[in-house]
Amino acid sequence: MAPNLSFGVAEELDLVEKRLRDCSLTEVETLSEIASYVVNSGGKRIRPIVTLLSFRVVGGEDAGKAVDMATAIELIHTGSLIHDDINDGGEVRRGRTSALMKFGLEDSLVTGDFLFAKVFELGGQFGEEVILITADACSSLPSGEILQRRFRFDTSITVDQYVGMTERKTARLISAGARSGALIGNGTPDQVQRLGEYGKNLGITFQIVDDILDVVGSEEKMGKRIGSDIREGHITLLSIYAMSNGSENSREELLGILKNDSKSEDDVARTLELIKEMGGPERAFQEASMYAKRAKEQISVFDNEYKDGLEELVDYILNRES
Amino acid sequence: MAPNLSFGVAEELDLVEKRLRDCSLTEVETLSEIASYVVNSGGKRIRPIVTLLSFRVVGGEDAGKAVDMATAIELIHTGSLIHDDINDGGEVRRGRTSALMKFGLEDSLVTGDFLFAKVFELGGQFGEEVILITADACSSLPSGEILQRRFRFDTSITVDQYVGMTERKTARLISAGARSGALIGNGTPDQVQRLGEYGKNLGITFQIVDDILDVVGSEEKMGKRIGSDIREGHITLLSIYAMSNGSENSREELLGILKNDSKSEDDVARTLELIKEMGGPERAFQEASMYAKRAKEQISVFDNEYKDGLEELVDYILNRES
Repeated sequence: MAPNLSFGVAEELDLVEKRLRDCSLTEVETLSEIASYVVNSGGKRIRPIVTLLSFRVVGGEDAGKAVDMATAIELIHTGSLIHDDINDGGEVRRGRTSALMKFGLEDSLVTGDFLFAKVFELGGQFGEEVILITADACSSLPSGEILQRRFRFDTSITVDQYVGMTERKTARLISAGARSGALIGNGTPDQVQRLGEYGKNLGITFQIVDDILDVVGSEEKMGKRIGSDIREGHITLLSIYAMSNGSENSREELLGILKNDSKSEDDVARTLELIKEMGGPERAFQEASMYAKRAKEQISVFDNEYKDGLEELVDYILNRES
Repeated sequence: MAPNLSFGVAEELDLVEKRLRDCSLTEVETLSEIASYVVNSGGKRIRPIVTLLSFRVVGGEDAGKAVDMATAIELIHTGSLIHDDINDGGEVRRGRTSALMKFGLEDSLVTGDFLFAKVFELGGQFGEEVILITADACSSLPSGEILQRRFRFDTSITVDQYVGMTERKTARLISAGARSGALIGNGTPDQVQRLGEYGKNLGITFQIVDDILDVVGSEEKMGKRIGSDIREGHITLLSIYAMSNGSENSREELLGILKNDSKSEDDVARTLELIKEMGGPERAFQEASMYAKRAKEQISVFDNEYKDGLEELVDYILNRES
């Protein structure tokens, strides 16, 4: 990541990277190899950044524990990505061959479990409140994953159902990092609450933008193919809005393809076209902007350089191209 | 389980069953259904029994926390069984259709993750020492699983390597339950240490007997097919001993089939025959008895009814037929 993308916590982020590497090491070589591969494969480190900024913005000083917390949150995310790839047959992750494809299902699966065990280990030093917040986020991920699969090819999904699923799959973990960071930094209950809401709204923004990029993004900039949601049957906010917006003909055509669970690549291309024609990306972006605004409102009470970092992070998430 | 198989902690075990059921419930119905299915599918509950007895034998009184700890240990075990079945394509588990076969890979995988998240949640109330012991056992499971797969069809495996693998796959979790139970019951450091060693030795005994039953057990009593280790390429202590014991001809024949990764059912039957002829089960039972004896030696310092329970448990594990 470019240094200007560390939002004022570059030093702490370096420590997180080091801690992530430490956590990947174990006496069994294969396990270390796979864990290191996935943990060092980059990613935007949004979750640790939110955790660290939340710690700093409330006045947290000695960053040691916050670094461990940020590491734990990123390990949860990384472990869940490995398991997601197994469930989706994901071939590329963060621009590289997925662990699933490189090391096989069996070893990848247990590497995910190993990373979760490391989270538990890191958690030992925290109080019950922090652990419960984090555990709740951990148990939300499987719920979100199951809901996401239930709604595949299901064009009756509502905006509320989409948001509920996104909260579980993405937003609660980011929110848990924010709340934990603030708690570790001795934030007041109001500050903890606000940063939790910031994280939730940022997480929803993040996911909507992800969905938008999967329709209108540049494959070159993202290092991955677009259209994967359509291909895998995920009905995102873009499709939901498009279906409520276009002409009757367009709507019927879109509905027909979205429901089809064996789409050709031509179908995928046509779906992308329809969603764009029917204004899906614009309306989804409006929605993302609303969540971004809500995130910023929550942190209006702070007044220091880390508040700027939190705001810049919102803008970055909303306007990113990859 | 018959009431006489609760080893003096029947009441506490009932509470564990209730807690296990509570932990399976979540707002997402499918997840609750799968979690309940696997959690309520019985099993011997050896791990909770060891945890509870260790708590009681050191004089622990208010069982609430010990019940939660015993529940956590069983949830770790249950979650790892689900993931093991995914890795092995296991069709039957505890005499019933496995979650993998009943609910599919994707939903089963995340249900395992969900149970691990519940462990994390339960862990919040414990001190760092208990969490670190439990986390260490959690990270041992993937190590053991990976080693087990590395050694498939590898007839060069030594007794020490087998024991090291078994410690990770089975013994450390049982040992962690024992140590945690003793810590929660305010045992002295020496008591905690002894119960940890008890658990480790009991765990190794358990696994060796499991391996023996897979060769000489009754399919009817066990509710599953024998020979699965041979079929899946796991070289157990029985094979290791047989290979060091029989005539040169028998040894070469056995070696040839064990290494073969596409055995016919006739090969499996012949392997079982050879292992029995070459004294594998007897020598493995001697080894199991030695570990059972070591387990009992560790608890010789105690003098109450729960010590009897711990001893009876060793005898049960060693002499069980299913």
